[in-house]
Amino acid sequence: MHVLIIGAAGMIGRKLTARLVKDGTVGGGGITALTLVDVVAPETPQGSRAKVTTRAVDLSTPGTAASLVAERPDIIVHLAAIVSGEAEADFERGYRINLDATRDLFESIRLEGKNKPYKPRVVFTSSIAVFGAPFPEKIGDEYFTTPLTSYGTQKAIGELLLSDYTRRGFFDGIGIRLPTICVRPGKPNKAASGFFSNILREPLSGQEAVLPVPDTVRHWHASPRAAVNFLIKAMTMDLSALGNRRNLSMPGLSATVAEQIEALRRVAGEKAVKLIRREPDPVIGKIVEGWPRNFDTARSLSLGFTAEKTFDEIIRIHIEDELGGKLH
Amino acid sequence: MHVLIIGAAGMIGRKLTARLVKDGTVGGGGITALTLVDVVAPETPQGSRAKVTTRAVDLSTPGTAASLVAERPDIIVHLAAIVSGEAEADFERGYRINLDATRDLFESIRLEGKNKPYKPRVVFTSSIAVFGAPFPEKIGDEYFTTPLTSYGTQKAIGELLLSDYTRRGFFDGIGIRLPTICVRPGKPNKAASGFFSNILREPLSGQEAVLPVPDTVRHWHASPRAAVNFLIKAMTMDLSALGNRRNLSMPGLSATVAEQIEALRRVAGEKAVKLIRREPDPVIGKIVEGWPRNFDTARSLSLGFTAEKTFDEIIRIHIEDELGGKLH
Repeated sequence: MHVLIIGAAGMIGRKLTARLVKDGTVGGGGITALTLVDVVAPETPQGSRAKVTTRAVDLSTPGTAASLVAERPDIIVHLAAIVSGEAEADFERGYRINLDATRDLFESIRLEGKNKPYKPRVVFTSSIAVFGAPFPEKIGDEYFTTPLTSYGTQKAIGELLLSDYTRRGFFDGIGIRLPTICVRPGKPNKAASGFFSNILREPLSGQEAVLPVPDTVRHWHASPRAAVNFLIKAMTMDLSALGNRRNLSMPGLSATVAEQIEALRRVAGEKAVKLIRREPDPVIGKIVEGWPRNFDTARSLSLGFTAEKTFDEIIRIHIEDELGGKLH
Repeated sequence: MHVLIIGAAGMIGRKLTARLVKDGTVGGGGITALTLVDVVAPETPQGSRAKVTTRAVDLSTPGTAASLVAERPDIIVHLAAIVSGEAEADFERGYRINLDATRDLFESIRLEGKNKPYKPRVVFTSSIAVFGAPFPEKIGDEYFTTPLTSYGTQKAIGELLLSDYTRRGFFDGIGIRLPTICVRPGKPNKAASGFFSNILREPLSGQEAVLPVPDTVRHWHASPRAAVNFLIKAMTMDLSALGNRRNLSMPGLSATVAEQIEALRRVAGEKAVKLIRREPDPVIGKIVEGWPRNFDTARSLSLGFTAEKTFDEIIRIHIEDELGGKLH
């Protein structure tokens, strides 16, 4: 089994790589080759039984997708994207990377299959940004996609292309819409969604964190470990059950900031909670107002995708996976 | 007011042109210039007070969209498309015309506005083919788009692009999803949907028509006159009421084939009905099974779009507009 991960240097890409290297198999098949690409060369994982190739490539450069596909990987995981803020700031770059490069990848697979049959599994990571306010209280599986960002638009288009290329038999595709990933490891960043992780991650390491929105803000979360599980399942499950509707909102946990903080108190005590400094930021508040609060993901749940049920669990996963199982 | 119609030689394009020439104004503004383009040069309408230019252009040829946009039309009506069957038969051609050419048009407008402010009205004709079975009994305004054809996929992508380009301020766009147009004038054609018109148009002219599906088949219709009214309204209404949700399913009439035939009996008598020959075609039956039967178009109705309420009305419009007001 040859697995290609595009966007392998990102947070999810690194965690997926580590998991595949640890398992050595995916869906019962041994992994013989692992090709890891990103705009910067991904680190070569240690201890892989599979042959690992890492490459620094820009997927939007003509010929790049074709060269990756020419090696006929069995499973292609497409994680690469310009993030929301950047796609909004640079219209042309966002469309070039998030739309054109994705389409070029799909086209390369179609063209590769023209000479000799080739039908890989394609896993496309989409986003809840395909939805745009106003929302119902819970966003159901049949709710329409009216993105309010260019990033969300590009992801929604990627979903449509994925479905059509799958329906036409060019590949076997699945698009998974990830919840906001929490607790995101690493340093605080300037993403508008950063505080959802910051207010947990920083106090868990004895650092102060800033909360820019009211405690009543509700949002949709899943752990990095859940995200990797979604991907593994998407890489290996029988997709015929999906019929022609190939894009799924993944399960997650709907929680208010207050509920996040209560979980932090239960897991790490009052001294952790005291490290959260409330500093309202109306700009972030306004952005977050337009974000989904809750989903009814009956379809992905019925297919066996699962996420965390409590924020205590999400915090414990962070402690296990990022802090070596120990609190500060 | 300079109006550009792309796809002006088609049935809807010709009817829209005739209406604009007759009115001489659109939305209270006098029409000074009318640019009519299509892959074959549209006929020059008689009696126009506006300066009329006709051109045979292939919108998918690089530079074509830019040259049309360079004249800075105030209103652009984009009707051009490869039809469903052809887009399914020729994957590359469908994407080139229905997606790439549409995107090139939108991009040309964005780039034209970079040097000197330019923000035209853009009316994009979409289709109920953006929806794919299984359906609810009525398809509501917030139902998701899961097309089952490449044509529907290309239209759904056009809708997403239209919304994003509008949100970013590059133009003021509206996408309208037309019902199946009935009674379609002209000769019987091989489109799977052709019989919906054939079974009325042919008998109204004393000709036989073939009905390939059961009388119980239900579908969604509007007259050519209603379609032109949708377009005129879309060209002129204040679009701020639409907010960021720029794509609308147009009103129509949900009717069974039996109801169509009953209307024909009321308007043209038993001798017309007797010209319908039942000749079941399982292939057409199967295609039609996957089509929408009914819609709840609360949003477009609340904005003042209207269509016919009975099939008698649809038939009378055909008699008035195509048969000089007289039955055979």
